[in-house]
Amino acid sequence: MTDFNPVQLIAAKRDGEALPDADLKAFIDAYTNGAVPDYQMSAFLMAAYLNGLSASEAAALTEAMLASGTHIDLSDVPGTKVGKHSTGGVGDKVSPILVPLVASCGVPVAKLSGRGLGHTGGTLDKLESIPGFHTDLSVEQYRRQVADVGAVIAGQTGKVAPADKKLYALRDVTATVESIPLIAASIMSKKLAEGNDALVLDVKCGRGAFMKNEDDARALAEHMVAIGAEHDTPVVAVMTNMDVPLGRAVGNWPEIQEAIACLRGEHAPSSLMQIVRGLAGEMIALGGAADSPEEGRAKAREAIESGAAWERFRRLVDAQGGDLSVVDAPDSRLDSASVAEVEIPAGTDGYVEDLDALSIGQAAVELGAGRQTKEESVDPVAGLTELKKPGDAVAEGEVLARLHSSESPDLDAVRAAVRQAYTFSETPPTAPSALKARYDSNGWADLKDERH
Amino acid sequence: MTDFNPVQLIAAKRDGEALPDADLKAFIDAYTNGAVPDYQMSAFLMAAYLNGLSASEAAALTEAMLASGTHIDLSDVPGTKVGKHSTGGVGDKVSPILVPLVASCGVPVAKLSGRGLGHTGGTLDKLESIPGFHTDLSVEQYRRQVADVGAVIAGQTGKVAPADKKLYALRDVTATVESIPLIAASIMSKKLAEGNDALVLDVKCGRGAFMKNEDDARALAEHMVAIGAEHDTPVVAVMTNMDVPLGRAVGNWPEIQEAIACLRGEHAPSSLMQIVRGLAGEMIALGGAADSPEEGRAKAREAIESGAAWERFRRLVDAQGGDLSVVDAPDSRLDSASVAEVEIPAGTDGYVEDLDALSIGQAAVELGAGRQTKEESVDPVAGLTELKKPGDAVAEGEVLARLHSSESPDLDAVRAAVRQAYTFSETPPTAPSALKARYDSNGWADLKDERH
Repeated sequence: MTDFNPVQLIAAKRDGEALPDADLKAFIDAYTNGAVPDYQMSAFLMAAYLNGLSASEAAALTEAMLASGTHIDLSDVPGTKVGKHSTGGVGDKVSPILVPLVASCGVPVAKLSGRGLGHTGGTLDKLESIPGFHTDLSVEQYRRQVADVGAVIAGQTGKVAPADKKLYALRDVTATVESIPLIAASIMSKKLAEGNDALVLDVKCGRGAFMKNEDDARALAEHMVAIGAEHDTPVVAVMTNMDVPLGRAVGNWPEIQEAIACLRGEHAPSSLMQIVRGLAGEMIALGGAADSPEEGRAKAREAIESGAAWERFRRLVDAQGGDLSVVDAPDSRLDSASVAEVEIPAGTDGYVEDLDALSIGQAAVELGAGRQTKEESVDPVAGLTELKKPGDAVAEGEVLARLHSSESPDLDAVRAAVRQAYTFSETPPTAPSALKARYDSNGWADLKDERH
Repeated sequence: MTDFNPVQLIAAKRDGEALPDADLKAFIDAYTNGAVPDYQMSAFLMAAYLNGLSASEAAALTEAMLASGTHIDLSDVPGTKVGKHSTGGVGDKVSPILVPLVASCGVPVAKLSGRGLGHTGGTLDKLESIPGFHTDLSVEQYRRQVADVGAVIAGQTGKVAPADKKLYALRDVTATVESIPLIAASIMSKKLAEGNDALVLDVKCGRGAFMKNEDDARALAEHMVAIGAEHDTPVVAVMTNMDVPLGRAVGNWPEIQEAIACLRGEHAPSSLMQIVRGLAGEMIALGGAADSPEEGRAKAREAIESGAAWERFRRLVDAQGGDLSVVDAPDSRLDSASVAEVEIPAGTDGYVEDLDALSIGQAAVELGAGRQTKEESVDPVAGLTELKKPGDAVAEGEVLARLHSSESPDLDAVRAAVRQAYTFSETPPTAPSALKARYDSNGWADLKDERH
């Protein structure tokens, strides 16, 4: 440890000076072991929130948080392992589709996921809606599954980046959560612990995302790619649209049901699959199983069509204890929990013009699909299905969405909220691209959805 | 208490929003009683440091800190009581001269003072260098002395603004001390507790002061006057020069000795007495014993010349237990502690051009006159006397300053530091005005020193 002085370090950040990496690491180490108290760290965090952190500072912070816990070593698993992270959105069931899909193309994927809080769901909650599916794997189980199945999605153990956990808890009560470099360091300290050789990040941008505008999303992407570079880990960030929910289902089991349909190639909401294939293309290329992201996208499409992706999903579920009979016959599970329909308002005739992802995410929480606090449990079957989406033709009397819950939510309120999330128009709206741009160490490039 | 949320309040300050007075007061109350933890307050303090506090916010903060402790009531003491505060400087022995001087002009003055820390001395340390002088008065003793003597200078009891004490301790370890609105609120929360009806502030500006430049000094003055206005207390701020030490003595007893000489009218360093009379004029006018500050200055001059000020000083010392025989024959006390002289460097012939107050203040600390930490005690006789000042003619072989200490300081180092604090010139320099400007609720006005 260097002979740093916490007050001088706080003052330097307060005054916008550059902090030496070694001092920043020593500060985080001292905080983690209790030598620096919460009140000094929170003053630092507010100064960092308001004055920012440089790429080098964010990287030093990340390394210190990473070094505070377990760094999983997958070097004995053959192949170039590629990780994936999403900054979170409404209806984001990309991971349960993407992870087995990429694995089926020959690129192993090891993933540590989180639980949902607020209006965005968590991948662990979604997968645990499959009866029997467990996510509390030991490091050895995690490593063996990457080697055997090529795909694993596990919960974070208490030992991954404990400094981040401690810091996040402090940020949560000191109004310092929404700092882009702090978010970047927090995400990367956990993703770099997964043991992958490269990483693809889905940076969501829009009303239903944490990053509401493109400037913030770009800054977050750039910070995370820079942190990856400092750690000698190639990172590609893909900025995707999160103004509108992804797909037509929101909720834990409702989203797994939709993911299953996508993996089976039965029906595939366009924007969802654009993002799945866009990310898959990057991961397959980074993993060396394609020469370019475009070739990777084509391989991903083939893996759905051939049934390889679906087969790999079943192996993943089976390896983690999930009930394959439920996965193989998913359609009846929601019947008992169907509680209401939302109908198209009277006088409406034409098209869905827009749908606010945030309102739909909040409606799903009201139905029981999400948590307001960390201590709450979630209702696996709660949520919305058959959502009409922008561009859909609608006519009075049709169903706008179906609501599901095992609890007793205030259905009138939810119904009204869902209706308010919609706007309608007489002519078909132009759909925005689901894929917006990609960023890696070579810079930004625009992305467009594939033509059908 | 309002139903405020600490995280929302921190976020609002972080985002530069205006905070409702009631919420800010509730926040301080909750901090004082332990319901809001240090880590939330320190995040707030850093946000306030970087985004500032409005006049209304600083006033609300002041009121909450004032309300946390004893608010001394002097309403049964006849007359308009006027308080005085200095932001601190090197050689600042204004209070021991000014307080009895103003009292002798018929305006009662009640003063709570502090101890020195770092390069600026504290009035309590200075007065306590008079054998027997005690400053730990009860509120009742304090009130009785204002009534009987018209003048009191006491230490802060633990019960005056305990919230400020708690906050200051936190600011000290979180790099949030040097925030002008926080400084203003801290000062005013203690000054408004003194029980005076009006207040004159000596806002020092320059190398030897806390405020190094006029912009900061002006901002501090404006904040304090605004806080006074919110509290219905007339406040006049006088900005004075602190590039050069005040007077020719620095240290506790050395400064009292010089104050005694000033009170007796024996010799009076010009800049020091300009400030004493400038502040006295304001206080005497605020207290209703003169129609204008100019008339007040003239009354102050008369009170020195008539011996009334000196007599009142003796009554103050006597009331607080000080040994009048020492005060009446002050000149022999330093002899035993005279340890060294600093001579004019070889080859110098002409005038003192400049003298750096900060370096002289630090030299006094090295000699034992000041504290580096709150726990240290001070050497009452340590310090510097007979300092040559800008404008003084000097010739090789003359004494530049005398050093005093009861301890064993590194005299060569102190001597070198004192020499380095001086610059010389062949022609007499133009002396800057000791009085720079005054500010009250009517705005700023320039001030000039009186002609002799």
